[in-house]
Amino acid sequence: MIRVTIYNEFIHEQSDEIVKKVYPDGIHTLLRQELEDDEITVRTFTLDTVEEITDEVLEKTDVIIWWGHVRHMQVPDEVAGRVKEAVLKGMGAIFLHSAHHSKPFKGLMGTSCNLTWREHGDRELVWVCNPAHPIAAGIDRYIDLAHEEAYGEPFGVPEPDELVFIGHFEHGEVFRSGCCYYRERGRVFYFQPGHETYESLKHPDVIRVIKNAIHWAYPTARVSELTCPHVEKPID
Amino acid sequence: MIRVTIYNEFIHEQSDEIVKKVYPDGIHTLLRQELEDDEITVRTFTLDTVEEITDEVLEKTDVIIWWGHVRHMQVPDEVAGRVKEAVLKGMGAIFLHSAHHSKPFKGLMGTSCNLTWREHGDRELVWVCNPAHPIAAGIDRYIDLAHEEAYGEPFGVPEPDELVFIGHFEHGEVFRSGCCYYRERGRVFYFQPGHETYESLKHPDVIRVIKNAIHWAYPTARVSELTCPHVEKPID
Amino acid sequence: MIRVTIYNEFIHEQSDEIVKKVYPDGIHTLLRQELEDDEITVRTFTLDTVEEITDEVLEKTDVIIWWGHVRHMQVPDEVAGRVKEAVLKGMGAIFLHSAHHSKPFKGLMGTSCNLTWREHGDRELVWVCNPAHPIAAGIDRYIDLAHEEAYGEPFGVPEPDELVFIGHFEHGEVFRSGCCYYRERGRVFYFQPGHETYESLKHPDVIRVIKNAIHWAYPTARVSELTCPHVEKPID
Amino acid sequence: MIRVTIYNEFIHEQSDEIVKKVYPDGIHTLLRQELEDDEITVRTFTLDTVEEITDEVLEKTDVIIWWGHVRHMQVPDEVAGRVKEAVLKGMGAIFLHSAHHSKPFKGLMGTSCNLTWREHGDRELVWVCNPAHPIAAGIDRYIDLAHEEAYGEPFGVPEPDELVFIGHFEHGEVFRSGCCYYRERGRVFYFQPGHETYESLKHPDVIRVIKNAIHWAYPTARVSELTCPHVEKPID
Repeated sequence: MIRVTIYNEFIHEQSDEIVKKVYPDGIHTLLRQELEDDEITVRTFTLDTVEEITDEVLEKTDVIIWWGHVRHMQVPDEVAGRVKEAVLKGMGAIFLHSAHHSKPFKGLMGTSCNLTWREHGDRELVWVCNPAHPIAAGIDRYIDLAHEEAYGEPFGVPEPDELVFIGHFEHGEVFRSGCCYYRERGRVFYFQPGHETYESLKHPDVIRVIKNAIHWAYPTARVSELTCPHVEKPID
Repeated sequence: MIRVTIYNEFIHEQSDEIVKKVYPDGIHTLLRQELEDDEITVRTFTLDTVEEITDEVLEKTDVIIWWGHVRHMQVPDEVAGRVKEAVLKGMGAIFLHSAHHSKPFKGLMGTSCNLTWREHGDRELVWVCNPAHPIAAGIDRYIDLAHEEAYGEPFGVPEPDELVFIGHFEHGEVFRSGCCYYRERGRVFYFQPGHETYESLKHPDVIRVIKNAIHWAYPTARVSELTCPHVEKPID
Repeated sequence: MIRVTIYNEFIHEQSDEIVKKVYPDGIHTLLRQELEDDEITVRTFTLDTVEEITDEVLEKTDVIIWWGHVRHMQVPDEVAGRVKEAVLKGMGAIFLHSAHHSKPFKGLMGTSCNLTWREHGDRELVWVCNPAHPIAAGIDRYIDLAHEEAYGEPFGVPEPDELVFIGHFEHGEVFRSGCCYYRERGRVFYFQPGHETYESLKHPDVIRVIKNAIHWAYPTARVSELTCPHVEKPID
Repeated sequence: MIRVTIYNEFIHEQSDEIVKKVYPDGIHTLLRQELEDDEITVRTFTLDTVEEITDEVLEKTDVIIWWGHVRHMQVPDEVAGRVKEAVLKGMGAIFLHSAHHSKPFKGLMGTSCNLTWREHGDRELVWVCNPAHPIAAGIDRYIDLAHEEAYGEPFGVPEPDELVFIGHFEHGEVFRSGCCYYRERGRVFYFQPGHETYESLKHPDVIRVIKNAIHWAYPTARVSELTCPHVEKPID
């Protein structure tokens, strides 16, 4: 059983009428419903309970999924720090959409993670540029999303270790929409779809990509500690 | 002085009325006119003279630019082989548009270099995704090309060492339009614009990118031979 | 069942008394014995039968292992070409030791694959530099080989997509001993140990690495053809 | 004129008799003397003055060089943060030896930057594995250092964008000794030699590498601000 932990700040869904209609029980609940299956079990946290994402919780998490937007700064540094450290020890991590600016993602990238953005409900085609990648399994040439917030290059991240998707926005932008990173023992996937006012996170291909990413990011070489070992004697 | 050699197969410009109008003296002549300046000198070859691209010519070439399309197969293996070897020894190389299927490019990549293509004169926006890269110097957010052949992902090449541009085509495709590769001593740049029936190669930003790429690909660590040295004694 | 095909040129083992003692039935036979298990089945070819490595054989091969040294040039271009093409379509490939100069490996890399070499039976420590990588699973800090041919940098290959091992030779050299490449649909692993006069290929850790690499290279997104599709209509 | 800023914590040289003899005026002073030439001008800071590394100083710095060891934690987060931000905006950065654990380097990498270490005065051969790289210009096959602290793999950093040097330690370890990273607008070079009790930083080849790295890291696309721009209208 793959143990997935979802963090969703859960602000828009309570304060904005449009979002409330799209994700009435919150993005975390929708994702839990869509992702749980014979192999995946999910527990969820929101900004209200973010401090409950303790080391103990993270040790029992195989892959964390992160969605945040307007309250990144209210996630305590301690929580963000332990998520980052858990990734370096081997936990998988998937950052969705506006989580590009979340503390754990920025900490893992070491860069600003800036981008350009424009919100006009553009149709987006999310193209597979690496069809051999397990995260693209089962996806045809592209995912067709009726409406998304346009994210545009330049995306201020390190060159991805593997680029899987590139997004095409109707009114002009392109974006590296699916980026894989290896960071010490952990695997990190950034996936651009998922604006709170649109239906993208209900799209079966988006769910399939997230499921694929869960399997891809599942830890295979996890350690309990990050050490900097002193070797006392020369190699025999 | 940077010594640039241009190869253009020069078939369409003689056989197709539309192309004849766009590039009446051939793509090679247009490029020579646009590229020559105080720092760059150019000589040109076409399919008729491709066998004259000898080792001696290549040794006196700092950067080669290659445009071909319907006659890739008529470039002799010997010529393609010596171009590839010259690159591995340090000569720079720039492959334009349909040269993705040229023998030297395929030989250097080790892959099929396939892509999808569609020809409806789409407007293309060539986005800068790596604004820190010297090849993007002086380019704003994107290059705006009135018409281009649409090239689409997946592009069957190794993950670029540095990705500089991503193309956005009006009717849906995206493409990794500017890709840098380090191959032993040589630097290789693939640049997607340049279909024979359109004006892209006259666009000042396209010329600027090619000039930037010439400077970027200029050899700095060239060798006269590729060796596999036998070391006779252990390191002292 | 993973279907592995081993090619071993099988020259030294018949012509050189020392090698005959180390690998009396040939490197291919030793590898078959060591690799076959509940999940892996092996068939073998040698230079004498290399032309029998047909497209049909390759279609029924999940991962090919290649060992060659003094007779690389006698492998017909057609055979090398179809091995390369099978890799691009998704077949896994593992190149051992002196196969760095084999035709299929050079074709896939696009470079000379040169290195420096020195033969004094140095002890080699093959260090794990990427302990999170599945190919390093079960290996401690390093593999300790009593004797190996010293291979030294610079290794004339593209920057590996993932570097897993670095070799330390007693009398001075270092070498990127375990290099992963993604080439279109296929996965390629180069592994440096395996000189014909030493026992490395019998070392349990070397066998474990090769087994790990077989599992890692197992095709997951294979295609029957490499195509460059023409799209007739704009995306709807 | 290239404006270089050197930070050296300057603790060992005042508290340890051996170090005092090797670097009587401090590592920063030695480096300034060795690096200043017709193209390079240097100013220096130590832990005592680290807070004087203000935004204004950084804006007038083209490349920063960082040496620290036992007092990383005493560098204020604010200072480390502004160094990191200056790099992302385009300032070059060179981290020497034990600066692998400095706050700005760890912040830029996003990882633990752990390694194994052993101190027995091993001879080190620092091999060039990428002879085409401008940082290796003028260096023969390897740099021969009489004594160095042994650093060993695994090195807990992201896969380098370009790997230039690999170190070979007499008693067994290997280490990725010269690693290049592109991080948004800035270029980062990590170089392993430079333990405080040995003479490495006086070695002409080490100085040459650092000078090469200064030229390589010189900013070419610096920005005054890191922005995440809102685009108000669709592309025309």
